[in-house]
Amino acid sequence: MHTLELAKPDGRGLTLYSRRPIDPALQAPSPFPEPLAGSPHLRWHPLRGEWVTYAAYRQGRTFLPPPEYNPLAGTTDPANPTEVPAGSWDIAVFDNRFPSLARPAGGDAPPQLIVPTRPADGHCEVVVFTQDPRSSLGALPPDHIDLLMRVWGERTQRLARREGIRYVLPFENRGVEMGVTLHHPHGQIYAYPVVPPVPARMQQVAAEHHAQHGRGPLAALIEGERRDGRRMLYQGPHAVAFVPVCARYPYEVWVAPVRPVEGFAQLQDAERADLARALKTVLLKYDGLWQRPLPYLMAWYQAALDGQPHPEAHLHAQLYPPYRTRDRLKYLAGTEIAAGLFAMDALPEDKAAELRQVEVGF
Amino acid sequence: MHTLELAKPDGRGLTLYSRRPIDPALQAPSPFPEPLAGSPHLRWHPLRGEWVTYAAYRQGRTFLPPPEYNPLAGTTDPANPTEVPAGSWDIAVFDNRFPSLARPAGGDAPPQLIVPTRPADGHCEVVVFTQDPRSSLGALPPDHIDLLMRVWGERTQRLARREGIRYVLPFENRGVEMGVTLHHPHGQIYAYPVVPPVPARMQQVAAEHHAQHGRGPLAALIEGERRDGRRMLYQGPHAVAFVPVCARYPYEVWVAPVRPVEGFAQLQDAERADLARALKTVLLKYDGLWQRPLPYLMAWYQAALDGQPHPEAHLHAQLYPPYRTRDRLKYLAGTEIAAGLFAMDALPEDKAAELRQVEVGF
Repeated sequence: MHTLELAKPDGRGLTLYSRRPIDPALQAPSPFPEPLAGSPHLRWHPLRGEWVTYAAYRQGRTFLPPPEYNPLAGTTDPANPTEVPAGSWDIAVFDNRFPSLARPAGGDAPPQLIVPTRPADGHCEVVVFTQDPRSSLGALPPDHIDLLMRVWGERTQRLARREGIRYVLPFENRGVEMGVTLHHPHGQIYAYPVVPPVPARMQQVAAEHHAQHGRGPLAALIEGERRDGRRMLYQGPHAVAFVPVCARYPYEVWVAPVRPVEGFAQLQDAERADLARALKTVLLKYDGLWQRPLPYLMAWYQAALDGQPHPEAHLHAQLYPPYRTRDRLKYLAGTEIAAGLFAMDALPEDKAAELRQVEVGF
Repeated sequence: MHTLELAKPDGRGLTLYSRRPIDPALQAPSPFPEPLAGSPHLRWHPLRGEWVTYAAYRQGRTFLPPPEYNPLAGTTDPANPTEVPAGSWDIAVFDNRFPSLARPAGGDAPPQLIVPTRPADGHCEVVVFTQDPRSSLGALPPDHIDLLMRVWGERTQRLARREGIRYVLPFENRGVEMGVTLHHPHGQIYAYPVVPPVPARMQQVAAEHHAQHGRGPLAALIEGERRDGRRMLYQGPHAVAFVPVCARYPYEVWVAPVRPVEGFAQLQDAERADLARALKTVLLKYDGLWQRPLPYLMAWYQAALDGQPHPEAHLHAQLYPPYRTRDRLKYLAGTEIAAGLFAMDALPEDKAAELRQVEVGF
């Protein structure tokens, strides 16, 4: 893995990653001439017992981009700088210009309110998956996806060294149905100063399972899913993908290494290569299902960064496409949002059968 | 409150409620001639430590309704029966024909799977707020909303007497943005055989707060919001409405009685009347904000039904409109769905100021 670390004119960081050597003369552009303004803060939600982050940035941009402007394409016109340079690289990671979590130099103190507050001193990064604006994560070659998994691991380790970071979540929101209007393949990495509610709950549940059974719940589930077989979408030597028996979204899929590891950085080369093939298989099945790009949320869960060993942790992705059928969205409403108890009108076995029938080859 | 209990031809229950006497000759129609088929079941989610409910009903209907068919309007053409009779009533409650939770007579046993399963033996009801298909909850007179709150209390008590019911959640999904295509004013009531994840978490947090401070967190927050004042939308003798300091949605509002009570049935008449005025104020402000019906999810949280006293519980509604601005939706994506840590790009103080400026009179 070749890397080149750069600084943008407005102070934000940019790192380029590639399978091949990177031209050291590349420079980091920015659409924004001035440094970041605004200090996000956290407020305590006393009923849910969790933090909420607030970041009120100016909505107005400092320039009016041309209609076809793609901030994630390599800069070709210096009068219209983008977020990344053109040139020899595969993957780029840069600091989000409008972060929900950030520790700006000279930032404001959090406001004094009727609930506890604190600085939202995390970090938000954008990950450009490829220079090709018309590609997609699933369409990338396996060794490019493998590189992305190395990048996720490297970013996690780098963010873990920052003071106070407790959790790193790589994720991708894909499609207008997920609120994404920028179709250039990209994801994000959020580094939180707290363990967020969902990973915190999963860690607690997994730790109890591990204490009782000597292994985490995902390791047990993977064994069960392999034995059952009906919901499996990929079974490689080191990685699996399946519609979980407890899917909360009709086309929900989980992707995981068979061996429990805390995060991407703990994967062996053969494991990571197989995990990349598992992910590619799922994403190609998604797009093949209805012969169109399927929107989804994909989140990769790693262990919390609290200085403790986490033998109960098990790196994996959960993917949630927002569709129930070809033309009907699954809306999260009363029971899902307000009660947290998901209601499914389709069985995971049936949805898995649909995805199993989609042939993919690479 | 006048009531009339009826049974539909397919076996489902229907209860009519009114401020005035109800014609005892009214009969319960049903668009469906045959009884319910299908037995929903719960599956255990071993990573999140929660239940998910599965109900795979036939999608095909037994008849093709006319294009303008409104199943919640009173039946006027016996050849096209709806869910409710025409006649002298204000509010109707009937069993959902496609329930996510149900205990059908002679239902199937839950499937044997690689995770624990159990019957989803709860209950799902539809609440028709008014006979006027073009009205809305906020447009109803205060004493009609007061009646609805009595109905919510009566249904909760009735459902609590069923074996194994642990939680009752009245809610309303409003608007196509929430997945609702039927615009006749209506809500739903879910009665769960378990305490769902969100109320369970809130109960745990509230109990810890109560043990430490001698009162629940909502009572403390209401005192703080009243003292601060900036986010208050309604302050009556017995009820309040405000944008909470920890809002997770830009136009989130909470409505609550000042005195902590476990549920609707524990409200005194004067409290319920003021709570109805508080709710009406909020809903009129919502629709006045952009001079159009604002979609929202509204959930009313009551105490769990576990046979224990819950001095920490505090009946209240949380309302979540899905808009960030007049023309931009708030999408729940990576950090909200996957991490559970909500990110806001607006301050509750600013959104409260917008809502405070909307004049309402009734």
